[in-house]
Amino acid sequence: MTTRADGRADDELRPITLTRHWQDHPAGSVLVEFGRTRVLCAASASEGVPRWRKGSGLGWVTAEYAMLPSATNTRSDRESVKGKIGGRTHEISRLVGRSLRAVIDYQALGENTIVLDCDVLQADGGTRTAAITGAYVALADAVAHLRGQGALSGDPLTGSVAAVSVGIIDGVPRLDLPYEEDVRAETDMNVVIDGTGRFIEVQGTAEGAPFDRRELDALLDLAVSGCADLTRIQAEALQG
Amino acid sequence: MTTRADGRADDELRPITLTRHWQDHPAGSVLVEFGRTRVLCAASASEGVPRWRKGSGLGWVTAEYAMLPSATNTRSDRESVKGKIGGRTHEISRLVGRSLRAVIDYQALGENTIVLDCDVLQADGGTRTAAITGAYVALADAVAHLRGQGALSGDPLTGSVAAVSVGIIDGVPRLDLPYEEDVRAETDMNVVIDGTGRFIEVQGTAEGAPFDRRELDALLDLAVSGCADLTRIQAEALQG
Amino acid sequence: MTTRADGRADDELRPITLTRHWQDHPAGSVLVEFGRTRVLCAASASEGVPRWRKGSGLGWVTAEYAMLPSATNTRSDRESVKGKIGGRTHEISRLVGRSLRAVIDYQALGENTIVLDCDVLQADGGTRTAAITGAYVALADAVAHLRGQGALSGDPLTGSVAAVSVGIIDGVPRLDLPYEEDVRAETDMNVVIDGTGRFIEVQGTAEGAPFDRRELDALLDLAVSGCADLTRIQAEALQG
Amino acid sequence: MTTRADGRADDELRPITLTRHWQDHPAGSVLVEFGRTRVLCAASASEGVPRWRKGSGLGWVTAEYAMLPSATNTRSDRESVKGKIGGRTHEISRLVGRSLRAVIDYQALGENTIVLDCDVLQADGGTRTAAITGAYVALADAVAHLRGQGALSGDPLTGSVAAVSVGIIDGVPRLDLPYEEDVRAETDMNVVIDGTGRFIEVQGTAEGAPFDRRELDALLDLAVSGCADLTRIQAEALQG
Amino acid sequence: MTTRADGRADDELRPITLTRHWQDHPAGSVLVEFGRTRVLCAASASEGVPRWRKGSGLGWVTAEYAMLPSATNTRSDRESVKGKIGGRTHEISRLVGRSLRAVIDYQALGENTIVLDCDVLQADGGTRTAAITGAYVALADAVAHLRGQGALSGDPLTGSVAAVSVGIIDGVPRLDLPYEEDVRAETDMNVVIDGTGRFIEVQGTAEGAPFDRRELDALLDLAVSGCADLTRIQAEALQG
Amino acid sequence: MTTRADGRADDELRPITLTRHWQDHPAGSVLVEFGRTRVLCAASASEGVPRWRKGSGLGWVTAEYAMLPSATNTRSDRESVKGKIGGRTHEISRLVGRSLRAVIDYQALGENTIVLDCDVLQADGGTRTAAITGAYVALADAVAHLRGQGALSGDPLTGSVAAVSVGIIDGVPRLDLPYEEDVRAETDMNVVIDGTGRFIEVQGTAEGAPFDRRELDALLDLAVSGCADLTRIQAEALQG
Repeated sequence: MTTRADGRADDELRPITLTRHWQDHPAGSVLVEFGRTRVLCAASASEGVPRWRKGSGLGWVTAEYAMLPSATNTRSDRESVKGKIGGRTHEISRLVGRSLRAVIDYQALGENTIVLDCDVLQADGGTRTAAITGAYVALADAVAHLRGQGALSGDPLTGSVAAVSVGIIDGVPRLDLPYEEDVRAETDMNVVIDGTGRFIEVQGTAEGAPFDRRELDALLDLAVSGCADLTRIQAEALQG
Repeated sequence: MTTRADGRADDELRPITLTRHWQDHPAGSVLVEFGRTRVLCAASASEGVPRWRKGSGLGWVTAEYAMLPSATNTRSDRESVKGKIGGRTHEISRLVGRSLRAVIDYQALGENTIVLDCDVLQADGGTRTAAITGAYVALADAVAHLRGQGALSGDPLTGSVAAVSVGIIDGVPRLDLPYEEDVRAETDMNVVIDGTGRFIEVQGTAEGAPFDRRELDALLDLAVSGCADLTRIQAEALQG
Repeated sequence: MTTRADGRADDELRPITLTRHWQDHPAGSVLVEFGRTRVLCAASASEGVPRWRKGSGLGWVTAEYAMLPSATNTRSDRESVKGKIGGRTHEISRLVGRSLRAVIDYQALGENTIVLDCDVLQADGGTRTAAITGAYVALADAVAHLRGQGALSGDPLTGSVAAVSVGIIDGVPRLDLPYEEDVRAETDMNVVIDGTGRFIEVQGTAEGAPFDRRELDALLDLAVSGCADLTRIQAEALQG
Repeated sequence: MTTRADGRADDELRPITLTRHWQDHPAGSVLVEFGRTRVLCAASASEGVPRWRKGSGLGWVTAEYAMLPSATNTRSDRESVKGKIGGRTHEISRLVGRSLRAVIDYQALGENTIVLDCDVLQADGGTRTAAITGAYVALADAVAHLRGQGALSGDPLTGSVAAVSVGIIDGVPRLDLPYEEDVRAETDMNVVIDGTGRFIEVQGTAEGAPFDRRELDALLDLAVSGCADLTRIQAEALQG
Repeated sequence: MTTRADGRADDELRPITLTRHWQDHPAGSVLVEFGRTRVLCAASASEGVPRWRKGSGLGWVTAEYAMLPSATNTRSDRESVKGKIGGRTHEISRLVGRSLRAVIDYQALGENTIVLDCDVLQADGGTRTAAITGAYVALADAVAHLRGQGALSGDPLTGSVAAVSVGIIDGVPRLDLPYEEDVRAETDMNVVIDGTGRFIEVQGTAEGAPFDRRELDALLDLAVSGCADLTRIQAEALQG
Repeated sequence: MTTRADGRADDELRPITLTRHWQDHPAGSVLVEFGRTRVLCAASASEGVPRWRKGSGLGWVTAEYAMLPSATNTRSDRESVKGKIGGRTHEISRLVGRSLRAVIDYQALGENTIVLDCDVLQADGGTRTAAITGAYVALADAVAHLRGQGALSGDPLTGSVAAVSVGIIDGVPRLDLPYEEDVRAETDMNVVIDGTGRFIEVQGTAEGAPFDRRELDALLDLAVSGCADLTRIQAEALQG
């Protein structure tokens, strides 16, 4: 086992913080921190669903991921000023939405929409996995809020979701990569796992050389164990 | 003197907080709070200036204001998704930039650019004036950072800037309006004032009935006194 | 009192012309000239209101300001070709709309919309104040047209509006700045005033050094007197 | 021979007016009127050419056609607000540019660019042909202006250009259609002709039933004769 | 009579191929080839009409023309990536739609919409005329498909449409220009003709010197004869 | 082992066709067919690299994926007309580019750019994996073309790439899903594998219920075997 720049073991998460009710207005609002990565996850609930779903009796959950210009090492241009959303933003927004929808029972949600806004306030690697992990807690708060209002008949949450990045750096599989490791990784994988340890999404990319089955297995093992920890931290936060 | 919903006197500011170094990456980063209004102001410095200014030996300062979708009472649409910036956003970005440029000596800044990103994390009235007040502190930190690096010969900061909103509610002039008062104001004014009490920008709008000279004078008096307090708070924060 | 390049006294307006019925199609159409500044103001009336106002029984007034590419000293790019509206255009469109709405009784207008198109055919300073001054006359014609058709029950016009620019050039406050003075002004202010001399909008900007209360007062005095003249000229035009 | 609503003979132009020097800034500026159709044509000259033509020693001429929202019977939406240019606008801009380039010697123009802005202030049919006819006069003024400045060695104008619309209404070929005839035309043709009577552009469209060779010939005859008149009127205006 | 690079006579078409049912999904799908020019024409039928036509009982036909980036000699940029459609694309889409609408009886079509997508897979001159010629066959297939479904009461096709390019190269009029001739043409004309030999659209442009009546007549003769051949080939394909 | 609608075994590919030189202009052009899915892959080579890579001595490879409106079951809107690229298109373009870059030696490519255009002419599931598989062959042709021209010193191709979709339908893992199976899949995975059987990209998504490690392993086994077949088919095509 090697030593990492921040002193962690290879299979150790960064310090994880979940601060609920960070904002006043949304039904759920969580500031999630994975080390220095800091994402504000807000779950806004509204009556009604998009046009293509009207009259179905089913609800909808969607997500928008974005990054403040000042979140990154070097200031990045504002997508609203450029007048279009970049491919990376699109891709992550879709991933976050898909991941959260995996634990939603649309029937129990009824014709309500929950939008998950994940705004990265500071980026140090793993922003998309932090976003998913925090968004789940914000979603749980929003669902509880709706149920408290008597707006729902059943419980639309069918499980919990957490996500973590894993990668191979200098031949060694590591959990929860900060930016400095992320750019050096030969292989980079983001894994979304539910509260029972089953996979919702697996996205692995060979950044350097292609990877073999043994490496893939090692990365999946790390991710499963990391997400189990995150699931526990989420549960504690929601009880807090 | 009337009593306000939050117990303040008519000429009293909300609790003001200026948290410096809120982010790791930008040269200056300040979380400013005017009561529940919370704006993250980042000052990012880079070498070089826009094309139209190249070779002039002069620097440039510009600003971009934006609001998180989750910052407002009801979720607002994301401008990057809409693919264009709204008139209000444009207007405030221009105001913030103009206000900060009023205390900049371009010659001393040299061919460097400072971008001020003011992202509203939570909105409760007065977001543009909080943005200007916080952006000044971020700008001062960025300038100090550049000077510390030996990147500047002189001091490009020629003064300080603060801003506050004032308005007439039920016939009474009041300082620093929260959202609840802002929507009820008959007249609404944003005033930007430098550290010596002189005006940089005066923007008054009759939301209900037109206003007369006496009302205008009362509002200006309130703003001058409020900005003097803000100037003092800024100076304390920068010494802290 | 100094002499200006065009021979005017410091408190004197440029020659003002208001040519009504310049176009055939809109309900009101006025070519307004402030010296060489020439703005075509059209008021188009239509039944119905924007979606967010439907069923309210209230009308709506809005404005769009634009400049022909050939209106300026050096040809400016066409915003339709660039695919987006600039911040300055947005800001002025909003100012014109707000100013005219200040004298509209939405109830009396009923669910009708009036759009004020202010297209600058030639620019020589003060285009936004000329636009407001001309748009009022076009609006009055459009309202008279609607009343003539029996489309309105009462009179939606609650007053008149005029606007003028003022500024400090070489330390001297002056009224109604042409382009040549505008670029040299240390302080620049646009003031919108109703027919009774009360303020609808005050927008003052320190272009050079910040300004003090005494200067602000001198500028407001000039604006009040200039707008009184404009109000008289508007009334004469509407009787013509 | 039938009688038309405005009393003209079938082969008669509407009253044509060409007002030169309508604006102060552009090198050429002509207000052209074909009856109630009113188009402001400005020719702005600048040094340099687009990137793809740099270093060729050749000049460039291009055109932009647009319509004020208030120019039409019913207010039309502003293309800058919609954020894109419509197909019709694109098509006409390209036609105007192509037509004027037909009489330009790029070599003699040198690396200079002339932009022709044709802004329709009032539309009553035939706006594109009026635009071409007026733009030629503005172009001639701009060229004369450049030559007066000694900016050109030779004469880049190799001829003159005029354009007119023709159409078949109730089976009868007619010249220079106003809006009321245009919408009723079975066949509609725009013809651009040079000063020697040769064709630069022929665009005929069957709006109702397809047309035969005899009808096509009759329309071309009308257009040739109408453009001969326009060529004479242009020459007179340029001597005036 | 001269010899052309590809050995054709001046009045001879390139080899024409019409492959029906090239795709599975659209109601009509035709791959049309004019020599090496290859355009995929699809006719997609759907119930309902655009908003402005609802309740009229009338159908609608429209077209969209586009080119693959890889279709041209040098790769061209993708319009979806640029975020806007170019003028040429707009213009051709409008031409194709207009041409096909000339043989449609909207009443017989009922409130159905047919969209003609003409995607150029390989460009070697004459893509717009190939598109029209192929789109007619796709449209005929789509109409037959709708009639087969019993969706229409009568026959909305009132005739057939074909189109061809003609031009003058080195003083000689020629039919159906490939790219190599197209760029050298002094005059270029696209002619759309119905099955009875009458004109639907005539678009002639002087690329080099203006052209006279005799040249225009020669070009029209060539186009009429070429389209007669195309009409026959279309009929054979539809019987195949 | 179950029977599939098209009679294939669960671990059997659809009929695969690779038609090289389908277009004349690009350096490589391949029509790839996976059953009824048909994608045109073109590799266009040009000298030079994007601005951010200039002077590095390194080449660049990028990809753009798109779908014809007529390719899908129901006509889809054209992204160029909508004025923006959808999230799915962005995501797949990025995936294709990343996959091909995994087998490129930038040094050996030198400062040349190869753009891979993957245009779906007909969609029946697996369009992104067909695109990658076809794009590799087009890329190999383009590289051979550049080497034939003497434009490259070494061989920039470090290996081959193929891709296939796998999924679980009714609890059974299956290879190469057509649309009909794709929409029913509980879990859907796209796997990109190099010629030596190592992973370049693994993207698995739980469409229905989350999946466990055993299911994931079964899917990976299927993909490895399917890609081995595709690698062989690619090699044969390149020898053909």
